[in-house]
Amino acid sequence: MFTGVAFDFQQYLGQKRSRIQAELERLLADNDPEILWESMRYSVLGGGKRIRGVLCLAAAEAAASKSGISADEAVLLALPCASAIEMIHAMSLIHDDLPCMDNDDLRRGRPTNHKVFGEATALLAGDALLVMASEVLMSRTPEQVEKSYLIDVALELVRTSGARGLVGGQVADMASTGLMDMPPSVAAEKLSMIHERKTGALIRFSVWSGARLCGADQDLLKAFKRYGEILGLSFQIADDLLDVTGSVESLGKTPGKDQAAGKLTWVSAYGVEGARAKLSDLEQEGKSILHHAGLSSETAAPLAALLEYSIHRQN
Amino acid sequence: MFTGVAFDFQQYLGQKRSRIQAELERLLADNDPEILWESMRYSVLGGGKRIRGVLCLAAAEAAASKSGISADEAVLLALPCASAIEMIHAMSLIHDDLPCMDNDDLRRGRPTNHKVFGEATALLAGDALLVMASEVLMSRTPEQVEKSYLIDVALELVRTSGARGLVGGQVADMASTGLMDMPPSVAAEKLSMIHERKTGALIRFSVWSGARLCGADQDLLKAFKRYGEILGLSFQIADDLLDVTGSVESLGKTPGKDQAAGKLTWVSAYGVEGARAKLSDLEQEGKSILHHAGLSSETAAPLAALLEYSIHRQN
Repeated sequence: MFTGVAFDFQQYLGQKRSRIQAELERLLADNDPEILWESMRYSVLGGGKRIRGVLCLAAAEAAASKSGISADEAVLLALPCASAIEMIHAMSLIHDDLPCMDNDDLRRGRPTNHKVFGEATALLAGDALLVMASEVLMSRTPEQVEKSYLIDVALELVRTSGARGLVGGQVADMASTGLMDMPPSVAAEKLSMIHERKTGALIRFSVWSGARLCGADQDLLKAFKRYGEILGLSFQIADDLLDVTGSVESLGKTPGKDQAAGKLTWVSAYGVEGARAKLSDLEQEGKSILHHAGLSSETAAPLAALLEYSIHRQN
Repeated sequence: MFTGVAFDFQQYLGQKRSRIQAELERLLADNDPEILWESMRYSVLGGGKRIRGVLCLAAAEAAASKSGISADEAVLLALPCASAIEMIHAMSLIHDDLPCMDNDDLRRGRPTNHKVFGEATALLAGDALLVMASEVLMSRTPEQVEKSYLIDVALELVRTSGARGLVGGQVADMASTGLMDMPPSVAAEKLSMIHERKTGALIRFSVWSGARLCGADQDLLKAFKRYGEILGLSFQIADDLLDVTGSVESLGKTPGKDQAAGKLTWVSAYGVEGARAKLSDLEQEGKSILHHAGLSSETAAPLAALLEYSIHRQN
């Protein structure tokens, strides 16, 4: 599938990451109060794969190709949204790492936010990023995006972040420890629900929002929604596998923590081989969806490559 | 001023509070995951004066009287915003009370959220409320409100809640302990900035947003902005006075904590008499602004009464 397309994924990823990084640096260039902004910058600018932001831009470019919008313009339209997504992702990591939550000391190979800035500042930096994401989306998205599209996307962003999305998933995840005694079918359903909210929702939003801002029609939005679901699920299964098979050097965080905590994961529920088989099925389905979405091979190539990358990455 | 107007403030307050309470109960009627929603309901529905929400509705009614909108309709247009404001207020209290912040055990005469639900759930309930406020505003505001007004209000809500508003104020407030050795002029400026963000911004937003949603013109928005500033400042000075002069029974929280912590407050900076004199000046200015805003006495009466109430309340 997509054979014959000469596509340099690493170059694509590098270019898009740089755009997002530069935008985030510009957005976070404030110092009042200094410790708060330092703490926000520490987590938002300090590394990360930017997969969610890049997905948003890639989906925007792909949708734009069908709406008569140039790829360059698509990036401009979706860049505030991509930045907002990265802010939400960073804040969820800051709050998840807090002592009263997962109590993690290490993230992306560096001390976690509260280890550097203290718990109170880390908590407030997370709060600030959570609302700054909406601010950036609403105030920086170019005027040419229809107001009704913008409200749709802004509304979906907060839904994705809240009790029915990220936050609800985190609560369910905390409660999942010790649920390994459940019958496998119950455990599997529970696990899907947790991941759908905790990881899946923001990844799906990343793809959907980029397309929505660039005028995608209902068919493409539906295809991208399913592609986003597949990608989110793949991402989480790959994460669970890395927690078992990865090293602290390659991951930049402590592996084996889920296992040690007796947490329900794809690996604990299905075993390493079962999880790998599920990943393979998802990769096939995702590529098939892209193939039938009416995109040119060139336009679909980044999205296909992002799926492959999410599945086969080493960290 | 406003003499001769028969206005039953207690009845007005009671009616508006009931509307807001009923709306909040409807909005928070979810249970997935149960502990999260329980925790959200505990803090949002469990008392509180609802001054901010009532202010939003009163400003909406007053502005509507100049835009040809009925008072009943104004309440419908602003009710989602009033509910959103109460959610933001509740979440700020939940996070402020956490052990890593002010470490308070008592709020509104009951154990604080984390004492009942644990720190992790309290943290996440605050996060959920922070984004749910935007969701409610954007998804529940009636269609007849112009989309550009709605985006304005949604954007201002997140600005008010974030690093340049509530969150920034809380960071500056934490850092203010021990600043009593500053020269009085420096301390006073610092104090104003903290209060403007921590308390003032949300109160000013309450007044402004209600008016904006009901089509207020620029003159009225400007007058309401200053009235909101005055009200916010008065509210904070009255709070600082109550921390010194109030009892645990009347306040429903522990008095004297600011003093004990050596925090910079209006009373520590200006003394009890100085703070009272400032309040008196603000009351005069606020009433004068309302008098010159081109509103009828009947329409302005609730806003004037809310100012009096904020200043002369006992808790």
